[in-house]
Amino acid sequence: MKNGYVHHVEAPLEQLIERWRTSDETERRELFTSLSSEKRIALIGALPQTDQEDIIASLTDESMKLLLAEMAPDDLVDLMQGVSTETRRSVWHNLSEETRKETLFLLRFDEDDAAGIMTPRYLAVRSEATVAQAIRFIRAGAEQVETIYYVYVVDAVQRLLGVLSLRALLTAPDETRVADIMHRDIISVHEETDQEEVARILETNDFLALPVVGSTGKLLGIVTFDDVIDVIRDEHTEDVYKMGAMDGVVQPYLSTSIIGLVRKRIPWLVLLLILGTVTTNVLHHYESIIVGAAFLFIFMPVITQTGGNSGGQSSTLMIRGLATGEIHLHDFRLVLARELLVGLLLGVATGIVIMARSLLLPPGLAPLQALAIGISLVLVVLFSNIIGAVAPLIISKLGFDPTVMSAPLMATVIDVCGITIYFETAKLLLGF
Amino acid sequence: MKNGYVHHVEAPLEQLIERWRTSDETERRELFTSLSSEKRIALIGALPQTDQEDIIASLTDESMKLLLAEMAPDDLVDLMQGVSTETRRSVWHNLSEETRKETLFLLRFDEDDAAGIMTPRYLAVRSEATVAQAIRFIRAGAEQVETIYYVYVVDAVQRLLGVLSLRALLTAPDETRVADIMHRDIISVHEETDQEEVARILETNDFLALPVVGSTGKLLGIVTFDDVIDVIRDEHTEDVYKMGAMDGVVQPYLSTSIIGLVRKRIPWLVLLLILGTVTTNVLHHYESIIVGAAFLFIFMPVITQTGGNSGGQSSTLMIRGLATGEIHLHDFRLVLARELLVGLLLGVATGIVIMARSLLLPPGLAPLQALAIGISLVLVVLFSNIIGAVAPLIISKLGFDPTVMSAPLMATVIDVCGITIYFETAKLLLGF
Repeated sequence: MKNGYVHHVEAPLEQLIERWRTSDETERRELFTSLSSEKRIALIGALPQTDQEDIIASLTDESMKLLLAEMAPDDLVDLMQGVSTETRRSVWHNLSEETRKETLFLLRFDEDDAAGIMTPRYLAVRSEATVAQAIRFIRAGAEQVETIYYVYVVDAVQRLLGVLSLRALLTAPDETRVADIMHRDIISVHEETDQEEVARILETNDFLALPVVGSTGKLLGIVTFDDVIDVIRDEHTEDVYKMGAMDGVVQPYLSTSIIGLVRKRIPWLVLLLILGTVTTNVLHHYESIIVGAAFLFIFMPVITQTGGNSGGQSSTLMIRGLATGEIHLHDFRLVLARELLVGLLLGVATGIVIMARSLLLPPGLAPLQALAIGISLVLVVLFSNIIGAVAPLIISKLGFDPTVMSAPLMATVIDVCGITIYFETAKLLLGF
Repeated sequence: MKNGYVHHVEAPLEQLIERWRTSDETERRELFTSLSSEKRIALIGALPQTDQEDIIASLTDESMKLLLAEMAPDDLVDLMQGVSTETRRSVWHNLSEETRKETLFLLRFDEDDAAGIMTPRYLAVRSEATVAQAIRFIRAGAEQVETIYYVYVVDAVQRLLGVLSLRALLTAPDETRVADIMHRDIISVHEETDQEEVARILETNDFLALPVVGSTGKLLGIVTFDDVIDVIRDEHTEDVYKMGAMDGVVQPYLSTSIIGLVRKRIPWLVLLLILGTVTTNVLHHYESIIVGAAFLFIFMPVITQTGGNSGGQSSTLMIRGLATGEIHLHDFRLVLARELLVGLLLGVATGIVIMARSLLLPPGLAPLQALAIGISLVLVVLFSNIIGAVAPLIISKLGFDPTVMSAPLMATVIDVCGITIYFETAKLLLGF
């Protein structure tokens, strides 16, 4: 068994999800009833919204109470934001008084902010406490909180002063004061910090959790690494959608309606179509030379396509480099110099290929014609490569998301410019 | 202060990296010397390979020993695999006997496997121990291990029997036996499990760490969540590169040589160019009708471009859906039905736009000509959309990575088919 799990008694979550997907309604109910409450919560969290709602709606008040009591408050809020008003009402009805308070508190914040993914269940001790007191406190409170791996230190009005790792606490002598061993050098995020920024901070520092504070410095909650992994995955999906020239909103494909899919795709498709019709005007301008030089027309698609591909490659490298923080705006000149050189090499290589092809295969061009086609491809690739590299940097500099400079938009822009470069080069070299 | 950090005493890692990037050699040396050893390790881990090597090479044996002693063994192995032979030798020279053994042990495994990202420093107790003994053991050993949040339970020959969360241990009475409170329902991965599979398992289950076992069930090490976040980021970069029609190998843009960049890009660029020249043959075939119908030629780029965009969108949705596990191969018919409908709606919408444009703006077509162009666009978009949706599923079914069906490859394939559909529709409707 080289792949997957080695040994386990209960089926792991992936297998459960797979079984769920291939089951009908009755089988699903049986499957769900057979699970431990821990697995039930994990399964609900992993299912699409419509399935979550089906499960919740099918539960008796008694089972729903048991289930809800064990859910993390931030997951509960996500669930409540996704279901219908009716289901939301019955969930609310089955929450404990305490959980209702937590839920109301969390619902105040924006879903995409740090506070929108935080949990209000964390461990905090006062700075005057001793290590022994803190350990006793943790042993008593550990079951109700989401992570016990960091213990936050606060003052009398709940302002964040420092943090203790559980490791530091366990390895310190009993009588030491918390204030003497806490890290004061603490990194926290503001309640309105964007969740993607939170993910980057947690990731760069390899933290398990980050504290979230309000404007007065008061500790509001913590964001844990598991929520951050979800943010990273969604961010990835969003980027991939945008790079495929679609609206970036993340929603599972199969639970998006046909109209939803059309809405996701049509704005970009029509925008690119309208931009693309500029090629019609450009070609209208060159229409007169077509009769004498039909070969230019039959080589045009491969020229613009190659330009688009080269521009798409360099824009992809820039977009990804900017997203990972590996390319910075002050690298502009360096990037330009590198891409000039790369573009020239790629242009010459593809130019030679197209020249060889146009000489050797039908319609078999004359040497000068083949040379004109080869040289225009060098110029188109060089131009596209630089536009592809520079456009995302400029867009980013202007404060917009460089991901909009997707390969399809790149290809459309390059179509217009590429056709012009192509015909002008041919006119110049062949004297039309 | 709405974004970023709220308060901290020492500069956080992001700011350090930024300062590093904008400093010259002398400033870098000063900056590095001024850091605590914790920050030094974090900074080294975040820098590109060439910078890592510069730092290591500039250290005295004394400082190198101090630095290496605090590095996690898995990070140390990554470092050693990246640097020159000379630097590797001096690193080796400054390792403690114990770390050398760990390093040799880890170097046996493939970089991309579970064992390649694991650390051999974990906590394991025998099942006969009591809670009090286990806690004492952890308090003593916590400083040397990477995570103390899970304690693994093993038998006399180091075979994995179960796991204890630190939380369970801290909340249990002192005299309880470890065997009575451990989870036997443990998920572990084999040493040769692919690292992306490891990431998915850890992520689905929200674990902090996963144990890695050999073929005999012996516990070899653990993979922690911070290494998994790195795997997820690299996997994302790899996907983005492949979707931009490039080689997927992840290497920072600025530390890749010009030749390295050309090598990354040229195979796909030339392959797509060669595929793309099929359009030349197709157009050669229609060359004779051009003289009488030049308008078909000037509308061709926008038609094929729109088809390529639509096919790129649907292939992007499929590739991402397959990657997140949200679309399965047995959804084939459902996907086909949905994309038929979506493609028809998108085709009709874009068909109306192009018809309106060709009637109203120069070169101002006759109604029948405009209708022919509109209808061909409907057919091209419908066809492209279905190919875009179906091709990744088929490729995945055949056991290949569907990410190769990138938008650029899609656009090239669609160029050839789209041109044929376009001219045949026009011939049929306009009677050439």
